[in-house]
Formats: sequence, C-alpha cells, structure tokens
Amino acid sequence: MSPLLDTQFNARIQHIIDTKTKPVGSLGQLEQVAFQLAVIQSQAKQSAAETITLTKPTMLVFAGDHGIASEGVSIAPSEVTQQMVMNFLAGGAAINCFCRAGDIELHVVDAGILAPLAAPESFPLGHGYHDQRLGSGTENLAKQAAMTINDVEKGLTFGADIVEHSVKGGSNFLMFGEMGIANTSSATALLSAVTEHSVTDCVGVGTGITKEQLYKKTQLIEQGVERFLSQYDRAETKYALAELGGFEIVQMVGAFIAARKHNVPVLVDGFIVSVAALVATLIDPSSRETMMFAHHSKEAGHTRALDALQANPLIDLELRLGEGTGAALAFPLVKAAAEFYNNMASFESAGVTV
Amino acid sequence: MSPLLDTQFNARIQHIIDTKTKPVGSLGQLEQVAFQLAVIQSQAKQSAAETITLTKPTMLVFAGDHGIASEGVSIAPSEVTQQMVMNFLAGGAAINCFCRAGDIELHVVDAGILAPLAAPESFPLGHGYHDQRLGSGTENLAKQAAMTINDVEKGLTFGADIVEHSVKGGSNFLMFGEMGIANTSSATALLSAVTEHSVTDCVGVGTGITKEQLYKKTQLIEQGVERFLSQYDRAETKYALAELGGFEIVQMVGAFIAARKHNVPVLVDGFIVSVAALVATLIDPSSRETMMFAHHSKEAGHTRALDALQANPLIDLELRLGEGTGAALAFPLVKAAAEFYNNMASFESAGVTV
Repeated sequence: MSPLLDTQFNARIQHIIDTKTKPVGSLGQLEQVAFQLAVIQSQAKQSAAETITLTKPTMLVFAGDHGIASEGVSIAPSEVTQQMVMNFLAGGAAINCFCRAGDIELHVVDAGILAPLAAPESFPLGHGYHDQRLGSGTENLAKQAAMTINDVEKGLTFGADIVEHSVKGGSNFLMFGEMGIANTSSATALLSAVTEHSVTDCVGVGTGITKEQLYKKTQLIEQGVERFLSQYDRAETKYALAELGGFEIVQMVGAFIAARKHNVPVLVDGFIVSVAALVATLIDPSSRETMMFAHHSKEAGHTRALDALQANPLIDLELRLGEGTGAALAFPLVKAAAEFYNNMASFESAGVTV
Repeated sequence: MSPLLDTQFNARIQHIIDTKTKPVGSLGQLEQVAFQLAVIQSQAKQSAAETITLTKPTMLVFAGDHGIASEGVSIAPSEVTQQMVMNFLAGGAAINCFCRAGDIELHVVDAGILAPLAAPESFPLGHGYHDQRLGSGTENLAKQAAMTINDVEKGLTFGADIVEHSVKGGSNFLMFGEMGIANTSSATALLSAVTEHSVTDCVGVGTGITKEQLYKKTQLIEQGVERFLSQYDRAETKYALAELGGFEIVQMVGAFIAARKHNVPVLVDGFIVSVAALVATLIDPSSRETMMFAHHSKEAGHTRALDALQANPLIDLELRLGEGTGAALAFPLVKAAAEFYNNMASFESAGVTV
C-alpha cells in the first residue's frame, strides 16, 4: 500500500490558483482539477509544482469476455468484443475518434477476450496492442467463480505492468477504458458485493437491453452475489474479484494501484471503470488520490459507485458506450486546467485592480 | 427574419449517426451536437452534409461598461473592464488559456467600455481588437434608459458586422463571450422584462457580491424593470434593450441574428450571453436554430434563461467567470462530435455484428 499524498505543498498551490486574474473559485471544478494535478506532481520532486506538465497522455482500453454473456444479458454476443477490439486497432471506433480529437495515445490490452487476435500487428494501430490474457473469457459468475484467486493475483500484476510500461514510455497522465460484452453484469455484481447496495439498486440496462432481459440479468447477478456472500466476508475484496470479476476489471484494479505508486493521475471513465476504481481503493485506499473522474454515465449503478468514491465527475452527457469515451471527452478539460494554472496572469502581473 | 432551417436532410443525417459502430443513442448529447452541426451545414449546399467541417473556430468577446456599476452592484469598479480587455489582448486571462488549449482564435470587440484603449495595436493580440463603440458605458438603468433606441439599432448592425467579418475571414463556427463590470444587472433586468419572471427569481451574486449588495442590486434592477413596463409592452423587445440593456448585450443580439443568416453555429457561453440569445430569438425566432449551449453557470437567472430557450448545455462545472470561458471549454466536445460523425466506422464497414 502506498502512503497518502504529502499535503505540505497544498497551501502554495492554492495560493497560485487564487491569485490568477479571476474571482476566487470562479473556475469551479476546473480549479479542483488543477489543484489535484499540481499536488500529485509535487510529490516526487518534493516542492510545490509551479507548472503542471502533461506528457504523452495515454488511454488504456482493457478488453475481456464474460461467461455470463452466454445467458443473454447483453444486446450483443461475446464475438462482438473481439470485433470491437479489431475496430479499435483499425481506428474506426468512437474511442479512436475522441483520442484523435484530444491528442491522446491509444493502447488496447487483451486481458482475456474469447479468442486471441490472429495478427494484431497487421492493423494500423497494432503497435498499441498488448497481450495480457488471463484466459479465454471468465466462467459464468452466476454459476461458479468467474476466475481463480491465482488469476486475480496475476491480473493485478498484469495491470501494474502496463502502467509501468506506459510510465517508462514517457506518459505521465493515464485514462482507463474497457470493452467486454456483459461486463456491466460483472461490475454490478462486484458493486453490490463490496458495498451494502442490493443488486436491484445497482443494476441497469447496459447499452440497451429489454425489461425482460433486465429481470433475468438481475436474478443471475443475485445468484452470484449470494454465492460470494455465503462463502466470504464483504471485505475479502480479492475473493469478490475472483467470484464476480472480469479479466479486464481485475487488471484495471491493479493498474489503479500502480498509478498511485508512480504518482500518475488516472482519468476514470464510466460505470465499469469506476467499479474497478472502487475495488482498488478497498485494496489500497491511497489509490483514490491519483483518480480523477471523467463523466457520469446513464448506467444506474454508476451513481452508487461515484458516491462510494466521493467523486464528482466533470461531464454528464448521457453517454452509455464505455470504451473510455467519457474519459477521452473529458480530457480537454484537464488540459485546460493545466493551461490556466501554468499561463494565466496574476492580478499583480496583469495590473488588474483587486 | 430568416426562415427556419430546411428539414429535408434530417433523415439522412440521423441515418449516418445511427449506423456508426455503437448502440443507437449511446453517445448521448454528442449525437445531438453532430446532428445539429450537420443540419446547419446542409442548408447552403442543399444536400445532407456527409462530413462536418469546422474552420477557424472563433471566439468573439464583447466588452461594455454599465452606468449601474456606480451603485456598487459588483465586486469590482468599472475600470476593471478595461483592465481585463488589456489582459485579453496581452494573452493572460482565463479565456486566452482556454482558447489556446482549444485552438480557438480570439477577437475582442469594444462595444462601449468606459474609455477606449490608447494603443490596442501595441498588444500581442492587438490584431484581434475591434472598435465598435456605442459610447463610454451606458446610462444607469435603475434611473433612466441605458441607451437610445438609435443606439440599439446601431448596436444590432455592429453585431451583424463582426459576424460577417468573421465569416468572410474564413470562420464557420463562432463562440460569444462577454466582459463588463455589472453586466449581470443588465442581463437580469432584461430577463425579467422579456419573461414573466420576477427580478428576485432572476437575480444572483454575479462573480461574488455580499448579501447586502444583492439586496440593493435587486431593488435597483426592479426600478429599471418597473420603468420599462410602465412605458412599454413586454413584447417591445428593442425598447427593453434600450431601457435595460448593455452595449455588449445589444451587439451580441445582432450577432446571433446574423449568425443564423449566414448559417454559422454559435456556441453560447453563460448567463449574459444566454440572455442576449433569448432576446435574439424574440426578435428573430429562427436565430435559435444556429445556437448551441456550452454550459450551465452558477448564476441563478441562467437556469431561467436556458429554460426559456429550451436549451440543454453541454457542461456544468460551477463556472461563474464569463469571458466566454464556458464556451471555450465546451468547444472540444463539438470537435469530438464532428470527428465521430466524419470518421467513425459503420457496422458494415467494420464487420461488427449488429
């Protein structure tokens, strides 16, 4: 576990923000973003960051398949996970568009989709593909443990590895997204398992299932959560991951914990990534300190997850796509926060009457 | 008055959006942004826009001073308007930072601040300064008409002129912002005058006055609104502008109407710009069709103005600065909408199972 962030630089950083040519607090949430970035970037150098640097901002999209998909809890079959991964590597998905628009580097992590890609290097973005497979999709969490506790430990390490790889490659700002047919089922199960919320309070329609599918999805998730709670205590977080998690979710948990270790902020995407973030904070509370929250999605459980994380996301555009799209769309606000922190005049320098 | 937009291209545009590799509607408000942009860009060429182009996006900041400032209704004296205009031209204000971050060209219109700038060309951004002065600040709207009806007509023309100048210069996307100490008083008075809302329901603390100042501000604005209503009908919009408006507000009204004439979308900033937008729709209802709404500010009356415009803004970051900052911050979302409309794969082209 990493320690909490050193607060000795906070006063100087707040002073920098408060003497800019604007009424105190008038840039709202953007001031909090600048503050958090500056505090994080003060840690390693042990002095208050007078400027914020954002180098090689990188989106990591973690993909995995889910045994529960065979029950028909999603609008699409598991094959679509691989098809969308190929779409990412070909550059044609929404996340590609938003990464291009935001000048964000995109990497795709195969955490365990049904079948490995035959020739990822043949795609235009194949260099951004990372094979970190924990298996060919998880088991059906409604009926048995989704994975073994060994898979969980291996997944946490894999997640840390890709963060370290990104940091060594020069990135000091990360975003996490995901792709995995039926992964809202896994995220919902986890959320219910690690909090006091019932499955009914956490479940939603994902990318758009019917009322009948939603009823079935709820029952199946409840079966999984009940099995977990009959064997373990809520606080046995890693066993919750084993029983109910997904390969992409486990790797994101490890990635969040590693990001804090490296003092690298992570902009959190929607419901599934937020649940991974919540689970990470249960394993290492200090991982919360390098998390920033991009958006509030339409998925019902997202509000519960954000509340548990005491998070106030930047945007709310009624998105329900995943892939990291919310994080990529919110990233320009992070850039704008750094820009005002670095380059806005102070009252004194601009000769403006206070 | 311009006609309403031709709707014959809508079906084709919706089809383009719905066949992208995502569940229908899953990009939420961003899909509405793409739809509106494509519809607007279909008008002149009389065929459905297969791509959206954004050329030379330009922020126009309209600055003006207000006679009512002498009553102490703001946190700062009128001199600060000119100081901030100089800050804009020097590149040190928040709006400069956000325009840089968003790759937006910035122009400043002196619509009538207290004293003209001595040597605007001596500033780094002096080429973006436009002298369209209607006077040296308005009269005190609490006591008399803020300007003459001739000033209003001249201001509407000046506003149209700067839009035409921008369009001729190659811009096909505009954003409006404003600067003017005490202009929330003028905007509040106008909002109350042209709607059924009481002044108390529209008034707010601006950039941060005290409770006592707020009480006084409310009373002064009520005096102005009562004087207007004792002489004119609510629907006499141009007389509302003369009695209660500001030089920058009047010019923005003219600019909104001209933008619709040129089929150029305008991203609307906060409270004051939204009130100008509302007034524009009362003079020319078709001007609503080229308006897009950037953000929801903390100013109380903004909600009323947005409701009257049936507007659903893109972001809500608790901003209360003005200058066009909300519009500049929301602009990357507009770019992202264009990017997905133009370059996202369809299910067919990507080989993804529907």
